Amino acid sequence: MNIFLSDRATPIPLKPGRHVLDALKEAGIFLNASCGGKGTCGKCKVKLLEGKPVIKGHGKLTEEQRAEGIVLACQVYPDADIKVEVPEGSRLAVGEKIAVSKTEGLMGMVKAAGGGLGPIVKEAHLQLSAPTIDDARSDLERLKMALADSGIEGTRFSRDFLAGMGKALRAANWDMSFRHAGGDAISIRQAASRPGFAIAVDIGTTTVVVYLINLADGKVLDVGSTYNSQIRFGDDVITRIVHATEGGGLEELAKTVRQDIKGITRALAGRHGVDRGEIELAVISGNTTMSHLFWGLDPGSIREEPYVPGVSIYPVLRGAEAGLFMNPEGAVYTFPSVASYVGGDIVSGVMASRMHTKPEIALFMDIGTNGEIAIGNNEWLITAACSAGPCFEGSGIIHGMRATEGAIESVKITGADFRVETGVIGTEGTAPRGICGSGMIDAISEMFLAGAVDMKGNLHELPDSKRIRRGENGMEFVIASTPAGDITLTEVDIENILRAKAAIYAGISTLVKEVGLTPDVIDRVYVAGGFGNYLNIERAIILGMLPDMQRDKFTFLGNTSITGAYMAAVSAKFQEEAAEVAARMTYVELSVSHGFMDEYMSSLFLPHTDVGLFPTVQKLIKK
Amino acid sequence: MNIFLSDRATPIPLKPGRHVLDALKEAGIFLNASCGGKGTCGKCKVKLLEGKPVIKGHGKLTEEQRAEGIVLACQVYPDADIKVEVPEGSRLAVGEKIAVSKTEGLMGMVKAAGGGLGPIVKEAHLQLSAPTIDDARSDLERLKMALADSGIEGTRFSRDFLAGMGKALRAANWDMSFRHAGGDAISIRQAASRPGFAIAVDIGTTTVVVYLINLADGKVLDVGSTYNSQIRFGDDVITRIVHATEGGGLEELAKTVRQDIKGITRALAGRHGVDRGEIELAVISGNTTMSHLFWGLDPGSIREEPYVPGVSIYPVLRGAEAGLFMNPEGAVYTFPSVASYVGGDIVSGVMASRMHTKPEIALFMDIGTNGEIAIGNNEWLITAACSAGPCFEGSGIIHGMRATEGAIESVKITGADFRVETGVIGTEGTAPRGICGSGMIDAISEMFLAGAVDMKGNLHELPDSKRIRRGENGMEFVIASTPAGDITLTEVDIENILRAKAAIYAGISTLVKEVGLTPDVIDRVYVAGGFGNYLNIERAIILGMLPDMQRDKFTFLGNTSITGAYMAAVSAKFQEEAAEVAARMTYVELSVSHGFMDEYMSSLFLPHTDVGLFPTVQKLIKK
Repeated sequence: MNIFLSDRATPIPLKPGRHVLDALKEAGIFLNASCGGKGTCGKCKVKLLEGKPVIKGHGKLTEEQRAEGIVLACQVYPDADIKVEVPEGSRLAVGEKIAVSKTEGLMGMVKAAGGGLGPIVKEAHLQLSAPTIDDARSDLERLKMALADSGIEGTRFSRDFLAGMGKALRAANWDMSFRHAGGDAISIRQAASRPGFAIAVDIGTTTVVVYLINLADGKVLDVGSTYNSQIRFGDDVITRIVHATEGGGLEELAKTVRQDIKGITRALAGRHGVDRGEIELAVISGNTTMSHLFWGLDPGSIREEPYVPGVSIYPVLRGAEAGLFMNPEGAVYTFPSVASYVGGDIVSGVMASRMHTKPEIALFMDIGTNGEIAIGNNEWLITAACSAGPCFEGSGIIHGMRATEGAIESVKITGADFRVETGVIGTEGTAPRGICGSGMIDAISEMFLAGAVDMKGNLHELPDSKRIRRGENGMEFVIASTPAGDITLTEVDIENILRAKAAIYAGISTLVKEVGLTPDVIDRVYVAGGFGNYLNIERAIILGMLPDMQRDKFTFLGNTSITGAYMAAVSAKFQEEAAEVAARMTYVELSVSHGFMDEYMSSLFLPHTDVGLFPTVQKLIKK
Repeated sequence: MNIFLSDRATPIPLKPGRHVLDALKEAGIFLNASCGGKGTCGKCKVKLLEGKPVIKGHGKLTEEQRAEGIVLACQVYPDADIKVEVPEGSRLAVGEKIAVSKTEGLMGMVKAAGGGLGPIVKEAHLQLSAPTIDDARSDLERLKMALADSGIEGTRFSRDFLAGMGKALRAANWDMSFRHAGGDAISIRQAASRPGFAIAVDIGTTTVVVYLINLADGKVLDVGSTYNSQIRFGDDVITRIVHATEGGGLEELAKTVRQDIKGITRALAGRHGVDRGEIELAVISGNTTMSHLFWGLDPGSIREEPYVPGVSIYPVLRGAEAGLFMNPEGAVYTFPSVASYVGGDIVSGVMASRMHTKPEIALFMDIGTNGEIAIGNNEWLITAACSAGPCFEGSGIIHGMRATEGAIESVKITGADFRVETGVIGTEGTAPRGICGSGMIDAISEMFLAGAVDMKGNLHELPDSKRIRRGENGMEFVIASTPAGDITLTEVDIENILRAKAAIYAGISTLVKEVGLTPDVIDRVYVAGGFGNYLNIERAIILGMLPDMQRDKFTFLGNTSITGAYMAAVSAKFQEEAAEVAARMTYVELSVSHGFMDEYMSSLFLPHTDVGLFPTVQKLIKK
């Protein structure tokens, strides 16, 4: 039984009892499906061209859509071959690609941070005497003595290293480059071999990013990214933990993400003529669940009170154990985590921000699914996870989407009749197909200033305007009209967004209160994560998500998880520093914090019940 | 295509182009085949009952045997089903079984040697506090802190240990027995769990012996042994090295011997209700080639000048890496070797003999295939391999066999007509079917004293006697007549035996000369190996194999390789001691020693060209 696609020659096999969304996922075709395939979000639309499959439901599809043959892939259970068309708008797109050119400044940043080129993989040039009848020491003893002569002692040798050692020594004719990392022997190569390579890996819940780094000069040779194929087992960390534990899919999840990393690495290495064996180091950065799943560690306790991860400081794995495309003896370093919901990606990010080295008090925020924040300076660091939810990534918002092509990323509302101008990601003229996080923030703050929405997030029905109307899903504001239909924000969407921003702002204010301070002590805000450069600070302050501070105190850092991983790859100093940062970060569990609930309730308003906290917004409102 | 056996229900599959000997070996039926399947030794006789296979040759089979349907299994290439009978006499039998009762004194010996029960696997009772919201450290950090409180630091945790850690901690309800060895975490068990178990393993070229040891009291629970199934790839170390290197069979050889060990261990554990996970330690003793093959290390350089092994001091393996039936995290310790032909089994043996702790100068000899010797005391140790060859194990001797049931183990010759009395291994009345090493030594020394053979090993044809005659294979001495035929020693057999004994004696005298001494400084001789208790010292001196010393200075130690392995299992002290012993043993390569060839040539006589070295033999000759 197969699914034929209108734009693809090879059909996709489908097992009876499975829905089309799953079959497409397994074939590497990812659709938007923020509800996880429950038929409620209405985003996995496909057009049925041929066949009469069983359709379990139509969710939010309109009569017109249904008449056109649009179905929800997660509701379609074929019992014979079918043919479908997957509209571009239904496809999940990988987030902003990181251009190699953007990585050029990284080595300079490493130097500015007091590091130099000094990866954990070290090289020693050893010239051994060849064995003779009078000196018939074993190969290993000969090697060990040469190492001792070079001041290298206590090296550990794996069985696999020893299995290949004799041939390697003789191939190098006893004159060789010996590579080792953290006390483990990695390889024996010809004396004049070029220095090795490393990969830095950011395992995001949604995307996986890999840098291929030349350890000769610290340059990023290439960057690759792909969807985290674990998506097929669930969109967020919780559904993946459930799949790993209750579903018995731990090994499967581990294998899946390793293969993603392997696939990218193989492609990057092939493109640059790098041999597998030359990649001697991998640095892995990910949230606690992603790190556990990469390692194949039971993540069960992460989601059960008291939310305890199995491991927070990870030992170094060998390449072969990690199942990566690299030297089997190579070192695989994993960033330490702070807590179940403040992972290695945040430690990596804080380290990359350098906030922990400066006296000024800074706020670091990574607004993805979770919304992790850290506040502190060179003396103290405090951190929390805000459980903001994934709405800024498009989940739970009817027309929400990730910040990819076709997403409305900026909104301007003018006039009493609420004229709307939108900025859309993509080349000029790209038709909007949804609204991403920065677009949502713009839209609501503009609606608020224009009087279309009140402090509580309620829309005011205006008989004169078609902008605000009562639709199928209740009151809604029309952001854009397209041939494919209107893109709107409903009152429920707005409520979800207010909850998310309230969680973040309440997290920030709770954290600063924990250390006996007030938000105005914050001198610098580092914004990391997918939000990246699209976030309009002004609007986020009006929304009440960010503290009302001088605008030049905000800095966008992009994907700090991969930046920190890069740093730890080119310089071992940053592996030590990451351990120190993780140890210094005091975790606050907001769900049991007495003050948090009050802060959260006060923050559910636009911008806040206490408008005095937002003086510049207060002025704007008065205008 | 199958081979049907007269005494077995299941047929044995056979691939075209393979001979019957190979097919039987693969099915675990080992035949005597000291020529390695070349058709020359004539020992792998089977009786062809049905079928007409291709027979490439008949070797030394007599017309009568051929008329009875006897064929050599290594020369039979069936192209259709056949049926054969395998005579008992053709089957290779496992050497003397070690009775558990014989192991009872071992713990006493360990104590006498200054050791106590103190295996490398240690236990710590840890009582952890359960995690709470206020103390949500990761499982690993919690465990590490409890270890630090118990004074245990720097423990290494494997990926697999970490993968099972969370469940184990919770199953033990945080109150547990933590097991570790040499800095590696092994297991977490319920607090009241019984102490673990260990296996001591002797990997011989021919047989594999395993002790299952209770680490609670050091008692050997049970003993098992089997053929080293690597035999199917060659009888001696050289043919196995060739198979590993030129034949590409390294992994196969490694897997084969691991499965032998696994098979015995599983059976022993099953018999005593010991769980796989409770076996937390394995100690491996074997010659250098056996150790390399067990590890899966390339043994190629062992057989090429300058005879360099890959590894002499082995790191500790994990149970999973070693592929043994034990806790995957358990420690696998391998005895260090001294040289390519003085392996861990000799280090283990010397350690078990305790010669290295006493001022008296002792000679340690293990007369197996190779004939390793060590001389020294608590101040110095010198060692060599004599290349005696495997004739004392039956190889290369027409009626030679191992010291198993049916072997003539003692010979007495009286009268001018050379009446022969023989002692046969087995219950009374067991018919002789060959002659083993001790029988050969007896026979030749008795023949020499009786005047049947001269100093050079020549037999004197006596027309009056049927004992000495000219047979198919030249001059021969009839040791016994049986319904199945006469058991003889030919002049060629005698020459082979003289070469073997000359290699051993020359080895001893060369070694003592290396340290500027003479053989009479030796105060004690320890005889180890399969020869064990069957060797008649008196006769071995007459043969000129052992130095002419007071008979009470000889001590039989049996299988010292397994004894040393036992010691290192129950007490880590002996692992350290083994390393010291190996480091102290100075290896002499006899093949390039100037004096050795002269010594060897002088030793090719009965007992020696210089009879003055053998005063008691001189007296006997005069009588």
